[in-house]
Amino acid sequence: MKICIINGPNLNLLGRRETSIYGSKSFELYLPELKETFPELELEYFQSNHEGEIIDKLHDTGFSGYKGIVLNAGGYTHTSVAISDAVAAIETPVVEVHISNIFGREEFRKSSLLAKHCKGSISGFGLESYRLALHYFLSLKPRKLGFGTHQ
Amino acid sequence: MKICIINGPNLNLLGRRETSIYGSKSFELYLPELKETFPELELEYFQSNHEGEIIDKLHDTGFSGYKGIVLNAGGYTHTSVAISDAVAAIETPVVEVHISNIFGREEFRKSSLLAKHCKGSISGFGLESYRLALHYFLSLKPRKLGFGTHQ
Amino acid sequence: MKICIINGPNLNLLGRRETSIYGSKSFELYLPELKETFPELELEYFQSNHEGEIIDKLHDTGFSGYKGIVLNAGGYTHTSVAISDAVAAIETPVVEVHISNIFGREEFRKSSLLAKHCKGSISGFGLESYRLALHYFLSLKPRKLGFGTHQ
Amino acid sequence: MKICIINGPNLNLLGRRETSIYGSKSFELYLPELKETFPELELEYFQSNHEGEIIDKLHDTGFSGYKGIVLNAGGYTHTSVAISDAVAAIETPVVEVHISNIFGREEFRKSSLLAKHCKGSISGFGLESYRLALHYFLSLKPRKLGFGTHQ
Amino acid sequence: MKICIINGPNLNLLGRRETSIYGSKSFELYLPELKETFPELELEYFQSNHEGEIIDKLHDTGFSGYKGIVLNAGGYTHTSVAISDAVAAIETPVVEVHISNIFGREEFRKSSLLAKHCKGSISGFGLESYRLALHYFLSLKPRKLGFGTHQ
Amino acid sequence: MKICIINGPNLNLLGRRETSIYGSKSFELYLPELKETFPELELEYFQSNHEGEIIDKLHDTGFSGYKGIVLNAGGYTHTSVAISDAVAAIETPVVEVHISNIFGREEFRKSSLLAKHCKGSISGFGLESYRLALHYFLSLKPRKLGFGTHQ
Amino acid sequence: MKICIINGPNLNLLGRRETSIYGSKSFELYLPELKETFPELELEYFQSNHEGEIIDKLHDTGFSGYKGIVLNAGGYTHTSVAISDAVAAIETPVVEVHISNIFGREEFRKSSLLAKHCKGSISGFGLESYRLALHYFLSLKPRKLGFGTHQ
Amino acid sequence: MKICIINGPNLNLLGRRETSIYGSKSFELYLPELKETFPELELEYFQSNHEGEIIDKLHDTGFSGYKGIVLNAGGYTHTSVAISDAVAAIETPVVEVHISNIFGREEFRKSSLLAKHCKGSISGFGLESYRLALHYFLSLKPRKLGFGTHQ
Amino acid sequence: MKICIINGPNLNLLGRRETSIYGSKSFELYLPELKETFPELELEYFQSNHEGEIIDKLHDTGFSGYKGIVLNAGGYTHTSVAISDAVAAIETPVVEVHISNIFGREEFRKSSLLAKHCKGSISGFGLESYRLALHYFLSLKPRKLGFGTHQ
Amino acid sequence: MKICIINGPNLNLLGRRETSIYGSKSFELYLPELKETFPELELEYFQSNHEGEIIDKLHDTGFSGYKGIVLNAGGYTHTSVAISDAVAAIETPVVEVHISNIFGREEFRKSSLLAKHCKGSISGFGLESYRLALHYFLSLKPRKLGFGTHQ
Amino acid sequence: MKICIINGPNLNLLGRRETSIYGSKSFELYLPELKETFPELELEYFQSNHEGEIIDKLHDTGFSGYKGIVLNAGGYTHTSVAISDAVAAIETPVVEVHISNIFGREEFRKSSLLAKHCKGSISGFGLESYRLALHYFLSLKPRKLGFGTHQ
Amino acid sequence: MKICIINGPNLNLLGRRETSIYGSKSFELYLPELKETFPELELEYFQSNHEGEIIDKLHDTGFSGYKGIVLNAGGYTHTSVAISDAVAAIETPVVEVHISNIFGREEFRKSSLLAKHCKGSISGFGLESYRLALHYFLSLKPRKLGFGTHQ
Repeated sequence: MKICIINGPNLNLLGRRETSIYGSKSFELYLPELKETFPELELEYFQSNHEGEIIDKLHDTGFSGYKGIVLNAGGYTHTSVAISDAVAAIETPVVEVHISNIFGREEFRKSSLLAKHCKGSISGFGLESYRLALHYFLSLKPRKLGFGTHQ
Repeated sequence: MKICIINGPNLNLLGRRETSIYGSKSFELYLPELKETFPELELEYFQSNHEGEIIDKLHDTGFSGYKGIVLNAGGYTHTSVAISDAVAAIETPVVEVHISNIFGREEFRKSSLLAKHCKGSISGFGLESYRLALHYFLSLKPRKLGFGTHQ
Repeated sequence: MKICIINGPNLNLLGRRETSIYGSKSFELYLPELKETFPELELEYFQSNHEGEIIDKLHDTGFSGYKGIVLNAGGYTHTSVAISDAVAAIETPVVEVHISNIFGREEFRKSSLLAKHCKGSISGFGLESYRLALHYFLSLKPRKLGFGTHQ
Repeated sequence: MKICIINGPNLNLLGRRETSIYGSKSFELYLPELKETFPELELEYFQSNHEGEIIDKLHDTGFSGYKGIVLNAGGYTHTSVAISDAVAAIETPVVEVHISNIFGREEFRKSSLLAKHCKGSISGFGLESYRLALHYFLSLKPRKLGFGTHQ
Repeated sequence: MKICIINGPNLNLLGRRETSIYGSKSFELYLPELKETFPELELEYFQSNHEGEIIDKLHDTGFSGYKGIVLNAGGYTHTSVAISDAVAAIETPVVEVHISNIFGREEFRKSSLLAKHCKGSISGFGLESYRLALHYFLSLKPRKLGFGTHQ
Repeated sequence: MKICIINGPNLNLLGRRETSIYGSKSFELYLPELKETFPELELEYFQSNHEGEIIDKLHDTGFSGYKGIVLNAGGYTHTSVAISDAVAAIETPVVEVHISNIFGREEFRKSSLLAKHCKGSISGFGLESYRLALHYFLSLKPRKLGFGTHQ
Repeated sequence: MKICIINGPNLNLLGRRETSIYGSKSFELYLPELKETFPELELEYFQSNHEGEIIDKLHDTGFSGYKGIVLNAGGYTHTSVAISDAVAAIETPVVEVHISNIFGREEFRKSSLLAKHCKGSISGFGLESYRLALHYFLSLKPRKLGFGTHQ
Repeated sequence: MKICIINGPNLNLLGRRETSIYGSKSFELYLPELKETFPELELEYFQSNHEGEIIDKLHDTGFSGYKGIVLNAGGYTHTSVAISDAVAAIETPVVEVHISNIFGREEFRKSSLLAKHCKGSISGFGLESYRLALHYFLSLKPRKLGFGTHQ
Repeated sequence: MKICIINGPNLNLLGRRETSIYGSKSFELYLPELKETFPELELEYFQSNHEGEIIDKLHDTGFSGYKGIVLNAGGYTHTSVAISDAVAAIETPVVEVHISNIFGREEFRKSSLLAKHCKGSISGFGLESYRLALHYFLSLKPRKLGFGTHQ
Repeated sequence: MKICIINGPNLNLLGRRETSIYGSKSFELYLPELKETFPELELEYFQSNHEGEIIDKLHDTGFSGYKGIVLNAGGYTHTSVAISDAVAAIETPVVEVHISNIFGREEFRKSSLLAKHCKGSISGFGLESYRLALHYFLSLKPRKLGFGTHQ
Repeated sequence: MKICIINGPNLNLLGRRETSIYGSKSFELYLPELKETFPELELEYFQSNHEGEIIDKLHDTGFSGYKGIVLNAGGYTHTSVAISDAVAAIETPVVEVHISNIFGREEFRKSSLLAKHCKGSISGFGLESYRLALHYFLSLKPRKLGFGTHQ
Repeated sequence: MKICIINGPNLNLLGRRETSIYGSKSFELYLPELKETFPELELEYFQSNHEGEIIDKLHDTGFSGYKGIVLNAGGYTHTSVAISDAVAAIETPVVEVHISNIFGREEFRKSSLLAKHCKGSISGFGLESYRLALHYFLSLKPRKLGFGTHQ
């Protein structure tokens, strides 16, 4: 079961940047922990500060064999109609994650242009947000989606 | 480890109400599944259509031995300053869940008055949103919160 | 043919409160007149100042043998997402009534959160608004709804 | 007892236009039914797509022997200060009706410039909205307006 | 001279909750001090987290022998049209109090739906706000309201 | 204990101007009453229509031996960032008073630029608003501010 | 010197309509007074409730020998982009008049879509507003516009 | 193949009015050029300054043998809910055209109430906008609409 | 018949400042022309850049023998609640004048805080605006206000 | 005559993405059809998901021998000030096209930041929008722009 | 080369007021440092809390031999249309300075009414902002403004 | 002392683009002048039209030995939350510069998302804005920041 984690702008600075908000662990250190926890998942990781590269990556993984995409679009969450269109265009389901609870921060961070095309949103649990997103994709396997669409 | 799940207005109709959005399983049927998945958790369940009763319940569980509260405030999410104040006032950490992805629905459903006082928000995964919230509280145990505050 | 009339907050003060706006007759005096005019209807009456009790009542009458609900939610008309959700969740059709013409009063009274889930809205005719709502349910009987849905 | 029914723009297309919203019966077919139901009323009918002609008609019927006007101003409901001024200027009481429940449709249809000068508003009952408006005028006769003004 | 003090949601937590904002003394400890300072007043105290119960209480004390009501509606101050209507409906004059200076805090706390129907507003003096409100009612006695209405 | 009362524009017309709102007594007549009620206070009075002179006065009394300032900034309450800055800049605590209940009048009067830098706000009690403000400063003396900051 | 006075919707009711606002004299009675006061002017008068007829009239008088147009567009002042375009398109200068002071009435009456294409605006003097507009056109004659453009 | 071109208010002044914006050629001179370019089309032309007449014309041509309507509603584009309703009500497809690029002009000209019910919008090409609209209808003939609806 | 003309900030620069908008004649040169045209009026002139001095002047002339005040408050028109209060407080009627047509210029100049307390408003006629205002006061003399209040 | 067609983000998915809105034909299949229809044009095609690459391409083609640019900026239409600045900076005229009628879709899609710097806008005709844009550039050749600028 | 530095309200408190924001050095101590750095400049200094006096000073220095004005209007920056008009009216170029970075502070401080009439704006460098402004005027001398207008 | 100058989109066109606003000198020609004026500074220059490349560059220079960054983000100033986050994340202080005075141009150019994380902002001096920014960094050297933080 292949899952792609896509991180947006400034998330390469995790662990160095405003650590009181974002924690002191880099994603590179966190990724092995994730892989250890979910040995049944094949995790791919991609980070870019470029809006266009994120769209390209969504296109690449959105029609091939991936079972899910975990997307933290960083600052583009609030401004990018183009990424939002890309999420709507592809077939692979996308889960939106955020390290801090964006819905409880500054006004301009409260609205996500992506949410309406995502399967669900998880925010505020620090790096644990990613773990919970993977739990979700894992739970899909044996259950065959026997409940409603809760779009 | 005691956890209290609090459901707000109309969630007693789950399984009967707009099943295309909210799924066809009632919470009463889902609760045993949750307990089975997490045998190490002591789960309490409370539902009310009354804003005041939800505040009372938050007060009751907010200063005693509970390790966490999973709150789906339903329609009060968007209108109740009083519940938001209650979440801020108590000591037990609260995780906000929603069955549908509220941040991607009608305009008035996009803003949560509760989010800024919650540990995190999970929305859009159907009843799985509750399961993910419990995963979060469970992950707290062995790890001793070794990463930042990501408030 | 059973119809339930549900009155919201402060409507128990009818006849004592701002009589230049709301008239000088209490609903308790008006109810017998209504029953007399419509002997073919079985009228139930319920009043509460509690948002939660109104939701409970809507749930109780919304899936049983009632043919219609006449709802004057008073001040909750403009603020209660939870009651609006309840109206959407139940099966019995609801008609919204108001004693004064809310769509022509102060700005915050002009928007009704309930209207979009109601069969129709009647406002401004004083206590006659209730009578007109009952006329509507009565007209349904012999006609079998032969015209469109005019949602 | 003379009553004038005034229909605004596009209502001449009733029965041919978006029948899922407005029903499949034309007003010309409905009018005889209305007359049959209320033999004690002298019903006049007027339709125009012209804002100015509607104002002229309101002036013509607003100071003569008419007991009431039933007005469905269609799209002008939301934009015409001039018709609103006309309703305020005349003496005959006006009841506003709408086939669909405008207060629950698109945002720009939710506000009525006319409501504040009308006796009351009825919307959402299909062609039955007109019947209810006539019921109101009829109820005025024997009762002599013995309750408040509920402006 | 009977005065009723009504406290809204979360005020039962006074002394335990965000003490840097609300002080460390509970209202239960403060009440005897108030009674001692004003031996000529008969003080009744009521607290509830339920919007409906506050409305009920306003109705109960609003037409009987009370000379005044001191109301701290907490979070309902900013959202409850129904309580605002209740204050407008009753006869006993109401003074609005707040412990913190709500007009200088977060944006959504700046507007009070109640103020326009209250005799006056006092906010920001901690528990002293209640004492000042009682001073006001006391000053009414010997002076017979010899100055204007300053509505 | 020295207290300075500062009145802003048009308050020199008190007793002559819109007496239905502001009462018929001038401040000059009211001042002796205040002094008589509080013999332990040394009251200074200052009035000006000039924004700049009010700022000067705040500067003059804001760093010397005054224990408090009672400020009714009149129309400048809503527009003067400069006075607001002055209140923030000085050391003496300021209490904002208003004769009418500004929070319940026209929209533009509802926001006070001063409130966030004041100790508290009192409005709507006519000239009694000043008396209540003095009660507050007096209560500070023997109590030594033993409760929280309720900023 | 030919001047055309154009009156918009509902102004044919002058003298019968809300006389506390608009005075009790009809324009038909006032016109002879105007002609008597200004014997050197050739006054034409036109009234219509139809937006399109007002545009037609502006076109007719806007390129021929008229020296000025006095326009009271009534309710169309606030809603008609089309009349505003017509005023911009023609060559004859237009002066906007209003009987009541529209800039001091309800919110929606405060903005005039016409003002920016008019030579000037006069409002609030009752029927005298028309007289003042004619004074303006008269003053143009001997002076040859010797001061700036004050657009 | 019959096509009807409908021009709204002030477009009869084309060639005389603000020529720097709208060009110096009248539509009457341009029409023969259009007919010459498209000999296979039967072009009808209609212009009116009256909102109601435009609605009447849309009704007349909207259910008969016309293949398309080219509509330049002028100033009514931004204000007329009634014309927008008419476009939605009829069967003949409508293409919206504008001489200037309305989406790049003053703020109030940027929103078109008509666009959502039109097949497409063309603006900014001067009189060429009409020619391009006809090209569209012509292209429909041999191709049978083989691509999606791109509503 | 005494009339006072009050000019606000920057109007002492008339004739030197942006002459394409305000014309090239100073008010000092214009005043003798005004006096010559109206020999029956006793004209006083006052100019100040100080908000406070304008308020003082309004107070001085507002309760004595003046028949009217012509006020051009310049930039204070849009921001000064204090001057607006002063106009409301005094007894002498005030007419608002502006040299340019403020209602057709930049957005922030479109709203006048003064208009609602003035007898009327005249704007856009250059220095002629003052002349028209004087015509109004003159017309009051022999006519004794025989038309309505047109408030 | 060289023309460059620039397509923005997600347009490489044409034919695979939301085909009910965007049609089922890819641009790669459509381009040969365009070339066949306009043999006299030299068409270049460029697509990118990167905002910066689109700006670079506009710079490259904006000062060289291209006669026109057809730009469909996709999601960047509504958010990119930088692309808008680029269109303003270059010399080659740009025509804005959209497959769906953006001015009639979701609110955030209704405003185009590009329109004011483009020659014209064409939207809603599916892939035909491109064909119409090319018709425009072709029509420029023999006609020499003999009408106004219709900016 | 004469330059005038004008400081607005509360800047006389520099060094005493909120030193964490504004620094602990008074302007009187800073001025000699400035003079020492720029011996070729003749620096005049003026401070006032009065809006009117600042306008007077701008008038005094705006038409005489000054080469530039450095203006820190303090709180009036955001509210004073009158000072903004004065800056527009005078001939001497004005540079706006601020000690703190106003464009990054509270919302109401983000808009400067003065900026559009100033040569440029410098904010956020503490007292260094004044030094940078003087550098600008100095750079004008030998260069004779050889680059564009960058309005 | 190393300083990096970063220019955003379209600034590579300087000297060719809208020269009346931006001047006629390219940055490439200006850079040697800057280096000559400040021989003690080691200046690096970077320009890109790509949002992502600007973020990458900020990351590269934000944690290494650079003493300061001069950033002109062009159109991204108003839309890029991602660049704003990057400025907040890095350690090197950033000064924002603009050639034209953005705070005095079109509405959407007035707000800078970057300002609140920058040391200061300089705009409106043409290419001199860069020189002033360098003056600031230079002034930091010998003075050791002896005044407050003026954040």
